[in-house]
Amino acid sequence: MSRFLDEKYQPLVAYTPGEQPRDMRYIKLNTNESPYPPAPQVVAAMTAGQVESLRLYSDPTAKGLKEKLAAHYGVTPENVFVSNGSDEVLNFAFMAFGGKGAVFPDITYGFYEVFGDLYGIPYEKIPLKDDFSVDWRDYCGLGKLVVIANPNAPTGMTVPVSEIEEIVKSNLDSVVLVDEAYVDFGGETCLPLIAKYDNLLVTRTFSKSRCLAGGRLGYAFASPALIADLEKIKYSTNPYNINRLTLLLGEVTMDCNDYYADMCANIIRTRAWTAQALERLGFTVLPSAANFLFARTPAIDGGTLYAQLKQRGILVRHFTNPRICQYNRITIGTPEQMETFIATIKDILGGTP
Amino acid sequence: MSRFLDEKYQPLVAYTPGEQPRDMRYIKLNTNESPYPPAPQVVAAMTAGQVESLRLYSDPTAKGLKEKLAAHYGVTPENVFVSNGSDEVLNFAFMAFGGKGAVFPDITYGFYEVFGDLYGIPYEKIPLKDDFSVDWRDYCGLGKLVVIANPNAPTGMTVPVSEIEEIVKSNLDSVVLVDEAYVDFGGETCLPLIAKYDNLLVTRTFSKSRCLAGGRLGYAFASPALIADLEKIKYSTNPYNINRLTLLLGEVTMDCNDYYADMCANIIRTRAWTAQALERLGFTVLPSAANFLFARTPAIDGGTLYAQLKQRGILVRHFTNPRICQYNRITIGTPEQMETFIATIKDILGGTP
Repeated sequence: MSRFLDEKYQPLVAYTPGEQPRDMRYIKLNTNESPYPPAPQVVAAMTAGQVESLRLYSDPTAKGLKEKLAAHYGVTPENVFVSNGSDEVLNFAFMAFGGKGAVFPDITYGFYEVFGDLYGIPYEKIPLKDDFSVDWRDYCGLGKLVVIANPNAPTGMTVPVSEIEEIVKSNLDSVVLVDEAYVDFGGETCLPLIAKYDNLLVTRTFSKSRCLAGGRLGYAFASPALIADLEKIKYSTNPYNINRLTLLLGEVTMDCNDYYADMCANIIRTRAWTAQALERLGFTVLPSAANFLFARTPAIDGGTLYAQLKQRGILVRHFTNPRICQYNRITIGTPEQMETFIATIKDILGGTP
Repeated sequence: MSRFLDEKYQPLVAYTPGEQPRDMRYIKLNTNESPYPPAPQVVAAMTAGQVESLRLYSDPTAKGLKEKLAAHYGVTPENVFVSNGSDEVLNFAFMAFGGKGAVFPDITYGFYEVFGDLYGIPYEKIPLKDDFSVDWRDYCGLGKLVVIANPNAPTGMTVPVSEIEEIVKSNLDSVVLVDEAYVDFGGETCLPLIAKYDNLLVTRTFSKSRCLAGGRLGYAFASPALIADLEKIKYSTNPYNINRLTLLLGEVTMDCNDYYADMCANIIRTRAWTAQALERLGFTVLPSAANFLFARTPAIDGGTLYAQLKQRGILVRHFTNPRICQYNRITIGTPEQMETFIATIKDILGGTP
């Protein structure tokens, strides 16, 4: 840190992304990427001519992609925002709508509190219930920015849309942000509610179910006025926020919905297999509607299991927060990767006294 | 705008990017893009396998690209920051270092004042001299974030590095940001000064001389402590800020320096030809070290010339600020494009009574 950094950012603790070690080749089950590549049509769309066109700026209005998203999801382009990954739209939302404070669960995506700290937003972390479920009544009538990841991370658990609606309609004078990054793996979307409530913001990403984590493409749905607010922030920070080719690949992605539905079905199937295998080995596995599992076993400490898996070439994500430090978050990979994972777990547990 | 937007952003006037009309095919001389594609090796680097790898996140540390930039520019990777276009690093710099206020010329890149407004930073716009040159003495001993585009936009004019150094050493307790977006077209870099002054931040971009505007890739050089500050802001907003393939293309770009030097030489040659042709037609053309010219003629109003060029299929950039509204900013295209441009100017002037 330099002596020049604004004092308000000096105590800030930044977000820690999942590790990307280079010392060996790992089975990477730690950052919730897809084990499957983008659709063949997406790969084919990247012609030499397209790469040459990188000399030109991207379309700052993202018109084509907004139209594709709107058509697929049954909204209008004015209901759609697109961003440099969904972290960017989350960032903008905290900036734009967090002024009166924010609330979110104690166990959720770790970036929310970083945004809160970054913008000096007073925030409250509301404890999840003992079973890690959200009690929707905790979020009613607060008049602050409410942020709910649904499915939640790192638990994978969902909140029924009927409960989301109760939260939204009890906070009509503040924004309710529902982060649906993982919704395509079995969650229930609250997208239809945006037609009814102008305070609801639904965020999504191409990083998980659309196999484009490295493309950096997020999106959001809301009332046109909320979208206009986000556009204002975008045009005041980085109007050309999205790579030109990513906009193109995003459009082609939206023409290949069958492929991505198949990939999600694969992951849901592999998730069920993996959960059952873990339970047979004595693990407690939270019910997941995401592309990962959150699991613990009384047989071995969570941090130790993480370290032993890493030693054996498998990366999972471990959090040190005491409430969840006995768990590990395991991204669902291919069936072959998960068979190796389960065999490795057996090996580790067999070796535990 | 919604009723939810934080009141501090309500008066904000966002940046207006150069227009991207779709009603017809224009010769596009309005956003300072390169008329030349990226190097053939860059295009060839985009294999199907690379596109498939988009399922994985990008390296948030941008290790490979930082190493290439450091090696080429004779600094260490700890002196290098990379960003989603140079607008992102400018944004972060205003956030991180603007707390005590900011100063920049009245005629310069229009985004600086937007960042000032966005973060509630008190800023002063110091008038350029009558000939549009910077008087370095205006920026000495201010103790605020000083921002100098060198070459400046939209004038194309430069400030000698010896004068930049005077500014830097008279403001040792605040950051001096030198925006070198256009330096490769004939400017003089102040990069060597970062070894001497820990308060100097030099920003750059791949959008102009590296033919990658649509890739969104900017970078910056500074002391390791200033770079660490920028990293802290980045990891608190969007750790995976750069597209995975853009990182790759950026690395390959740095292996093709001869190609890009040739393209810059082409543009410098075409700039000289265009400036001379405009002067022959009675234009005043500011001395430019950038990939654009800033020119006016007493024969026709600046806004009218812009409109008549647009009608005839040529886009240039016109600004309504009264001090420069008689000028147009003309990006240097290919020799053929500039011949068409000059012929069109003759046609317009011939038609003016």
